[in-house]
This record gives sequence, C-alpha cells and structure tokens, in this order.
Amino acid sequence: MSKTYRTTRRVEFRDTDAAGIAHFTAFFAYMEEIEHEFLRSLGLSVIEHDEQGTVSFPRVSAHCDYTGAVRFEDVMEVELAVGRLGQKSVAYHFVFSHEGRDVAAGQITCVCCRLTAGERPKSMPIPRAFAAQLREYAEQLDV
Amino acid sequence: MSKTYRTTRRVEFRDTDAAGIAHFTAFFAYMEEIEHEFLRSLGLSVIEHDEQGTVSFPRVSAHCDYTGAVRFEDVMEVELAVGRLGQKSVAYHFVFSHEGRDVAAGQITCVCCRLTAGERPKSMPIPRAFAAQLREYAEQLDV
Amino acid sequence: MSKTYRTTRRVEFRDTDAAGIAHFTAFFAYMEEIEHEFLRSLGLSVIEHDEQGTVSFPRVSAHCDYTGAVRFEDVMEVELAVGRLGQKSVAYHFVFSHEGRDVAAGQITCVCCRLTAGERPKSMPIPRAFAAQLREYAEQLDV
Amino acid sequence: MSKTYRTTRRVEFRDTDAAGIAHFTAFFAYMEEIEHEFLRSLGLSVIEHDEQGTVSFPRVSAHCDYTGAVRFEDVMEVELAVGRLGQKSVAYHFVFSHEGRDVAAGQITCVCCRLTAGERPKSMPIPRAFAAQLREYAEQLDV
Repeated sequence: MSKTYRTTRRVEFRDTDAAGIAHFTAFFAYMEEIEHEFLRSLGLSVIEHDEQGTVSFPRVSAHCDYTGAVRFEDVMEVELAVGRLGQKSVAYHFVFSHEGRDVAAGQITCVCCRLTAGERPKSMPIPRAFAAQLREYAEQLDV
Repeated sequence: MSKTYRTTRRVEFRDTDAAGIAHFTAFFAYMEEIEHEFLRSLGLSVIEHDEQGTVSFPRVSAHCDYTGAVRFEDVMEVELAVGRLGQKSVAYHFVFSHEGRDVAAGQITCVCCRLTAGERPKSMPIPRAFAAQLREYAEQLDV
Repeated sequence: MSKTYRTTRRVEFRDTDAAGIAHFTAFFAYMEEIEHEFLRSLGLSVIEHDEQGTVSFPRVSAHCDYTGAVRFEDVMEVELAVGRLGQKSVAYHFVFSHEGRDVAAGQITCVCCRLTAGERPKSMPIPRAFAAQLREYAEQLDV
Repeated sequence: MSKTYRTTRRVEFRDTDAAGIAHFTAFFAYMEEIEHEFLRSLGLSVIEHDEQGTVSFPRVSAHCDYTGAVRFEDVMEVELAVGRLGQKSVAYHFVFSHEGRDVAAGQITCVCCRLTAGERPKSMPIPRAFAAQLREYAEQLDV
C-alpha cells in the first residue's frame, strides 16, 4: 500500500468570506501549499535548478469537491497522496477533514517542464531522483 | 441553441506568480467574479434576500484545465455558458482565450440553499424567477 | 490645480470576510490595480521595457486608513492623485467612497528601478516621457 | 522592557509575483495571520463571544515599509510587539527579516468593537482580561 503525507491547515481570517466560511478558492491555495510542503519533506522543491536552467511543474488541471464548511480558526486534517505518477506528470490527491467530518477533496495535476525565459514551457520526463522519491507515495504508477 | 455570456478579464499584477504568468488559483477567482457579473446582467444576485431570510448558491465543485499561459496586462476573452440547469443546482462553464488561443476552461457547480445563521445550509429548489432567467443560457435542462 | 483620475471598484465576494465586509487587505489590491489602470490610461505600463532591459516601480511603502465598511457588490468611487512626484519616486494617493460616505484613504510609494535578473533592483530617475505624463496629476513636484 | 512575540513565515508560491518576489500585499496578510497567532498563544481570539454577542477588532489603519525582497520558500523571522495599548485600541508592530537582513516593517491598528448584525460596529473598551494579557507586550500604555 502506498504511503500518504499528513499535515494540518488552519483557516485564516482572510480565507473566510461573507458567508462566514472558508471561501472555495482557499482550498486551491491550501492544496498547492501542501504539495510544496510535502516536497520539502522529501528534500525536494517544486522549482529545481540544474545546469541547463529551471525545472518546474506547471499545473494542467485542478479540481475540488466541497462537502462541508469550515470557519475561522478551524484546524483541518489533510492527507496527501500521489494519485498517479507518470513519466512526465504527477497527480496529487488531497482529502480535508475537520473533527472527523469530510470537508473537501481535491486533485492537482502537474506536468514536469523545462522553463526557459521567453519560451513556452517544454514538457520533459520527471528527473529520476525526484520520481524515485514520489514512487512510494504513488497509488498508480505509469512509468 | 443556448445563449452565452461574453466578457473579458485582464490579468492583474497580483494575479501573477514567480513563473511570470497568471497563477492557477486566479482562474477560480475570475470564474466566480464572472458568474456574479453574469447574474447582475440578468438583474440577479448570487445572494438574494426574501421574507424568510437569505438564499444563496454554495459551491459543491470547481474545476479548471489549463492549456496556455497568460501574463500581466493580458486581456482574456471569456465565454460563460450554463452547462446544466437542475431543479436545485446549476453548473457554469467558462472558456478563457487570449488572442485566439485557448488558455483555460473550467466549471463551477452550485447548489441553491437557504442560509440561516448558525445552521448548515439547506438545499432548496432554485426560485422560479431566477431559474427562468438562466433557462435560455442552459445547454442541458434537468428540471 | 492638479488633475485627478477617477474610477470605480466593485467589492467582489472573494474580497469579503467573515465579518461580512471587504477585508482590509483588499484595499491594497484595489490601489495597485487602480495605479496600473491609471498608467494605462496615459499609455504607460508599470513595467516598461527599453533596450537595456526592464524598468519598473517596486513599492517602498503602503498605507491605508479605514473609516467605513463596504459589502459584497457595493461599488466604490475612487479618486487617484499623484501626491508627490520626485526624481526617482512617486507617491499615489487614493480616496475610496461609497454613496457619498468616505470608506478608506491610502497611499502607495514606489521607486523607479532598473531590474536585472539575479541582481537587486537599482534605483534610477523616472524616464523623462513617463514623468512628463504624471506631472499634471502631481500635487507636489520635487524634480 | 516589554516582551515581544517571535515567529516565522515562509513565502508561499502564491505570494510571489511576476517580479519573482513576495508581492507587497502578502505582508498585510502575514501581519494579520501573525496577530491572530499571537493572540492564540495567549489563549485569546480576535473574535470573542460574550453573553451580549460578538466582540472583535476592526482595523482602522495598516502600514508597511519595504526594505528588501524575499523569494519563494524564503523563511522570514518575524517579531511582533504591541506598539501602543489604549483603552479601546491596540497597535501591533511587526519586523520581518531574512538571514539577518531587514525585509519589511509594518503596523496594524485595531479598535475594539461590539459587532451586532445589521448595525455599524460600536467601539468599546478592550475587555479587562484581554487587555491584561497584552499589557506585558506593550511598549506604550495609554490606559
């Protein structure tokens, strides 16, 4: 069975809206923050520099389903899994819960790209050492 | 054939990120802004008050696919369609393009709810006059 | 008497917070957006490219006083003035009102800099043609 | 000498802009987050409920001076002090530094108010127990 990464997120006041709850866009910010926190926990960064320039992971898709509301200062439990690890892409899954109740579940899909100033990002295989680190978190491997 | 609502959105500097392009979360903010602008164009608001209190449309799902990048001060063309109009829910579709090139396509699904302070939102049929306005923009009707 | 630039800003739902009003940080985003809109109205951009690279205006100070609250879909009148135009810096003043009532007043001070990748921004005189455009909006000239 | 509260803040990717650095508005979000974190460290919340309703601290002024740039994943040291504690208001001071270099210094001034739905906030003395907790962090006491 694949490993998961667990963390928490507190709803900040600026994340709330006039309905009194965390605004739906806040979950996309949380997901990206948690992806980066997960990568740091593995000694990686979403932006890596090598001798040829910069390698990063532009998002090609983002999704979130909302099943409950959270309010200012609520602390959510969050579980990240690598839903699918491909040769050039990776999909992160996130499940948010609060006091045992599901709040939201989302997914971000990224493609590994070489970034060169003034040019369009060019997709490339995920660097071997990076992919090796993600592998034990992957629910599905397509590599 | 159903009608669509057309508008534009300019990429503000605060929408950009260190990759030099509009951050993926900005599109969710654009989509919600444009939904509200569309409703205003019909004389409606996403938050309506009636004699029993407040009726609004919490989001149950949000999605976006990214196919191109846009930069500071780029002005995008945006087309909104009502993808599906149900008895209690509505799905808005959005297509973003820049100078004829597709940039992003997304969807937000909302459920009509009565909001009462201190209680969980309670789903209810979309008010008749509100639904009537959306009908001619609906690609699919499930009512 | 110096000229002013007038525009409007609508409070979007994502700008509101759980107190039901526009969050204090939203006014800093509005101020920057309006500065850029003002520059565009003069045919300028806050990021100009010349043969030596990029000239821009990093902020050195930002301030806002709040005297009233605004809510979702409120449309504010905003007046921008160039509070002070120096050789290398410019201070923009903003007054926000809603239905004749003052809501907020703020200031952003920027310094003209040459930006070179990998180096710290280096201050420089505001380009002559740029400064000429700002001059008739300036309440105070230190050039 | 008064006490200070020390914490850290990491620059998230969504905080950056196309100039490659943390956007100036991000510091206002950091300041508010840190104020709330400080209050929690004292067992307090910026929104307190008593038998008569809700007591909170609307902002009347916010300011920030910028003296250096920070980039994605930079971790800043932040020091919060209570600049001035009045009978009805409190001013928080913040100093941000990165690797020993000053980055930004700001201030947020709040007024204690009773909030009643549908009415304008009404200023009131800071509750005795709340003020007592802030007192040892206050550089200046006007109570």
